[in-house]
Amino acid sequence: MSTDPSSVDVPTEAVVLVSSPDRPGIVARLTATLDEVGGNILEASQYTDIKGRTFLQRVHVSWPSLNPEPEEVHDALQELADQFQMDWRIHWGHARRKVAVFVSREDHCLHDLLLLQRDGSLQCQISLIISNHPDLEQVAERFDVPFHHVEVDESGDSKSESRQLSLLEANDIDLVVLAKYMRVLSPVFVERYPGRIINIHHSFLPAFAGGRPYHQAHEKGVKLIGATAHYATAELDAGPIIEQGVIRVTHKDSVADMVRKGRDIERTVLARAVRWHLEDRVVIHAGRAVVFA
Amino acid sequence: MSTDPSSVDVPTEAVVLVSSPDRPGIVARLTATLDEVGGNILEASQYTDIKGRTFLQRVHVSWPSLNPEPEEVHDALQELADQFQMDWRIHWGHARRKVAVFVSREDHCLHDLLLLQRDGSLQCQISLIISNHPDLEQVAERFDVPFHHVEVDESGDSKSESRQLSLLEANDIDLVVLAKYMRVLSPVFVERYPGRIINIHHSFLPAFAGGRPYHQAHEKGVKLIGATAHYATAELDAGPIIEQGVIRVTHKDSVADMVRKGRDIERTVLARAVRWHLEDRVVIHAGRAVVFA
Amino acid sequence: MSTDPSSVDVPTEAVVLVSSPDRPGIVARLTATLDEVGGNILEASQYTDIKGRTFLQRVHVSWPSLNPEPEEVHDALQELADQFQMDWRIHWGHARRKVAVFVSREDHCLHDLLLLQRDGSLQCQISLIISNHPDLEQVAERFDVPFHHVEVDESGDSKSESRQLSLLEANDIDLVVLAKYMRVLSPVFVERYPGRIINIHHSFLPAFAGGRPYHQAHEKGVKLIGATAHYATAELDAGPIIEQGVIRVTHKDSVADMVRKGRDIERTVLARAVRWHLEDRVVIHAGRAVVFA
Amino acid sequence: MSTDPSSVDVPTEAVVLVSSPDRPGIVARLTATLDEVGGNILEASQYTDIKGRTFLQRVHVSWPSLNPEPEEVHDALQELADQFQMDWRIHWGHARRKVAVFVSREDHCLHDLLLLQRDGSLQCQISLIISNHPDLEQVAERFDVPFHHVEVDESGDSKSESRQLSLLEANDIDLVVLAKYMRVLSPVFVERYPGRIINIHHSFLPAFAGGRPYHQAHEKGVKLIGATAHYATAELDAGPIIEQGVIRVTHKDSVADMVRKGRDIERTVLARAVRWHLEDRVVIHAGRAVVFA
Repeated sequence: MSTDPSSVDVPTEAVVLVSSPDRPGIVARLTATLDEVGGNILEASQYTDIKGRTFLQRVHVSWPSLNPEPEEVHDALQELADQFQMDWRIHWGHARRKVAVFVSREDHCLHDLLLLQRDGSLQCQISLIISNHPDLEQVAERFDVPFHHVEVDESGDSKSESRQLSLLEANDIDLVVLAKYMRVLSPVFVERYPGRIINIHHSFLPAFAGGRPYHQAHEKGVKLIGATAHYATAELDAGPIIEQGVIRVTHKDSVADMVRKGRDIERTVLARAVRWHLEDRVVIHAGRAVVFA
Repeated sequence: MSTDPSSVDVPTEAVVLVSSPDRPGIVARLTATLDEVGGNILEASQYTDIKGRTFLQRVHVSWPSLNPEPEEVHDALQELADQFQMDWRIHWGHARRKVAVFVSREDHCLHDLLLLQRDGSLQCQISLIISNHPDLEQVAERFDVPFHHVEVDESGDSKSESRQLSLLEANDIDLVVLAKYMRVLSPVFVERYPGRIINIHHSFLPAFAGGRPYHQAHEKGVKLIGATAHYATAELDAGPIIEQGVIRVTHKDSVADMVRKGRDIERTVLARAVRWHLEDRVVIHAGRAVVFA
Repeated sequence: MSTDPSSVDVPTEAVVLVSSPDRPGIVARLTATLDEVGGNILEASQYTDIKGRTFLQRVHVSWPSLNPEPEEVHDALQELADQFQMDWRIHWGHARRKVAVFVSREDHCLHDLLLLQRDGSLQCQISLIISNHPDLEQVAERFDVPFHHVEVDESGDSKSESRQLSLLEANDIDLVVLAKYMRVLSPVFVERYPGRIINIHHSFLPAFAGGRPYHQAHEKGVKLIGATAHYATAELDAGPIIEQGVIRVTHKDSVADMVRKGRDIERTVLARAVRWHLEDRVVIHAGRAVVFA
Repeated sequence: MSTDPSSVDVPTEAVVLVSSPDRPGIVARLTATLDEVGGNILEASQYTDIKGRTFLQRVHVSWPSLNPEPEEVHDALQELADQFQMDWRIHWGHARRKVAVFVSREDHCLHDLLLLQRDGSLQCQISLIISNHPDLEQVAERFDVPFHHVEVDESGDSKSESRQLSLLEANDIDLVVLAKYMRVLSPVFVERYPGRIINIHHSFLPAFAGGRPYHQAHEKGVKLIGATAHYATAELDAGPIIEQGVIRVTHKDSVADMVRKGRDIERTVLARAVRWHLEDRVVIHAGRAVVFA
């Protein structure tokens, strides 16, 4: 599951993500292998799911003396993989992922992603913005990002999704960010980008899944409201949770106040989740997101 | 709904809680009334439920020059109440409420309540501890609080509840605190103490209502776990929320780790809710707890 | 200290802020006075500084039946003021304050203020942006706000300040927000706008006052970094604190990481402080900011 | 700097802490070495101080198949240490550290430590409690921990310190926890237990170092108060910070309220720091505490 190493030019850093059945010696063998191909380990994080007997590791490697031969690295890792039934992928540091942002009318999350990308905090290229409303075209223009208005019926709409999918493919999109996109994507769509669609839900999931979470929260009289960034899966609002945050509310806060307060949490939680994804810090395992933050 | 003023000896402070249909002038009239009976307002908080057209107020009054005549205060407030369809109650500062704490086996919440009461942070008298297990008798003894072991069937058990209710009545209990009491009280029991039973639920309600919330949270892979202090109502885990708190967890945390981390949140959230209740800062309105914190 | 009521057109709401020596009966008299001039109290908050024997109150009033006569309101409050040695001011709801934002090169706080003002979360008019660098002119243009580049020497520079002050006066500026403005204003400048200059300091004051707070924090190995919004006073970084926030850091965070993490706190803390100021929720008393949030 | 392996009986787990000049290949070599002596790596954390060119690692190892030969492990690590100029220590899982708790009059931190140790959350033995007041003797008795009242002059007092040091030595104490001990220890005392005295300071250091921090915080009008757990060093309140926490306060909070609110933060922050120390998660490096949490 590696990205094609042949296209690599001057790599000096890479992140290797590995999962395998937990067997003694695996850490030692993996680090030895990376050492043999000239890599120096900058940071390594492990997680062993004892019940699931699975071993997960993220290794951040650099090649301090001379450039790596991507093919050699690839072969060495594959050899280890065959031996340990290891699943692995490598992401070379210079390869910027292409990101599409889906929005509706609210722009606080979009603005944050654009500003963070511009100042270098998000290592990616925001290649296009897709919206079911024309409202945010101006924002896209200011940041010189192509904007596509694709109308979508409430009832779900395979024609719109076809149009969206064509745009994603034509632009070689690697990650889709649903930044307050108020339409539901079909299971078919979602399964085309498994583990590569990040959604921000404006509640502390699993509380208040579904529509109008701030209305539900107000009705219920909760004292904290939250936001949840998660991978989209076929089941609505139930995918692996990457990050969550909360903010305090009181009986004085109307639904409108909660919406306003919620915005700060939504955008920071989403931005953090996107950054971790782009830095290959998130691994989905047994339906949960393991975050090597 | 006032406490009997005739038993009052040397009162110098009181809290008045008022709710009424929202009508212009009510604040002015209430403050004027308290002024006329010699009271000086130390702190006043209002909340107007605009949709429900209801006005709620908490007034903390002192009698700086001479002692109030409780009967006169009572009559003045009742006169106003008749005029404004106002619901009211007064709690004189010197009257300590009697509290019963229900526990099972875990003692972190119980310990906190006992320590806080002893150092003066909780203005009450903890009159008895009731448990379905004998384990915590020693803790009760150390703090010289009577301990009653009342066995309770899993299936619910009206005989045990009768026994518990007798104990509450015999001790003139004003507030029941369920401090990690792992049995469900029947609707009949709960309705005997409306707005006077505070429960700590070890999750961020409404997420993970019901049993084994940390197991549910772990299964779901959430990134924050929480605790909720709420008034018990006939519907399980659905009563008005007084206070909530959260703490960060990661994929590394086992269920046991979550239980441990959760304890700190449970006890602080419960202690805060109990203190606010004892200071008459909580009013239940339209199924929600308004907290004048 | 009221704003001129004669210019008021169709006022229906106002906020009255009052401070006076604490005397029994003051709450009752103030609410009675507002009642007499037709006002209905929507929200009232008090604070009594017992040591300083001072009483502070914020009252949010509406005129539900007929429009108030501002002059009548003014006279009634002044009469009370004479009697109780009361200091007071009123701010009519329709009167939007004019705000100048000072920036240098970083735009995260500026962006937030502009977005919040545009979506109605900040009740004000951002009339101009002043910077010691030309970099953010484009941002100003996008939001149609006049931008003024005023160069400033490191050494302090009375000519630049004269130019800035002229701009503020010409635009009838009511509030100055220092949104990551990296120059120090002279005491003379600051004293021209007492209690009307809000600064965001990128540390948890009083820790790390002065320059390069993130470097200091990193050096010290703190586990939380913060931001502080405060009124500017002649003494650098020592004015009344309006709001503070923190975020967790670890040994892994470089100074650059702290700068990035700090941005989220800086902008939310500053935005909250500005909003509270614009809603007349902040009163400076005995060198501290009392916030009726 | 290992603990004596000869005393080890049935070890199955250990934590190895390593620091060395950063050299490529060190991770690979360390993991290979542990593999060779039969160890399986459960968790490994690295930190590379790039400016200081230092590499730090914590490895949690188990011996799943057969018991390790401590001497063999020791020798293997020492051989590596000689080669890489590596500083190292190992702590075998079964070896409980002996802890002395110093207190004065407040018992909230002490209670927490005792309760956590009793329920297994703190892997240690609390061997003795030393106080400059007799007040908490009863608490010690309840938990069957020897209590020593050692009077201490305000002016510092070498005779008292001699007495305290004798007690520590006689009880083979490994870690000293200052759990609201309101006396200053001399540099001589502190240097006898370098990196082995943990203090809780009731403020968000470096703000409000020194005495009466809540008074300082109140005076200053801060909106958050905090607590800091740090290693004691010869310089007062300036040692490496292990953990910090904050809680929100308002203008309504008196110094007494801050003291009360601060207690919850003090005890949780201290308990967390002590737990991390006991799990060998803290390494002091360049004056800062690196926490592998």
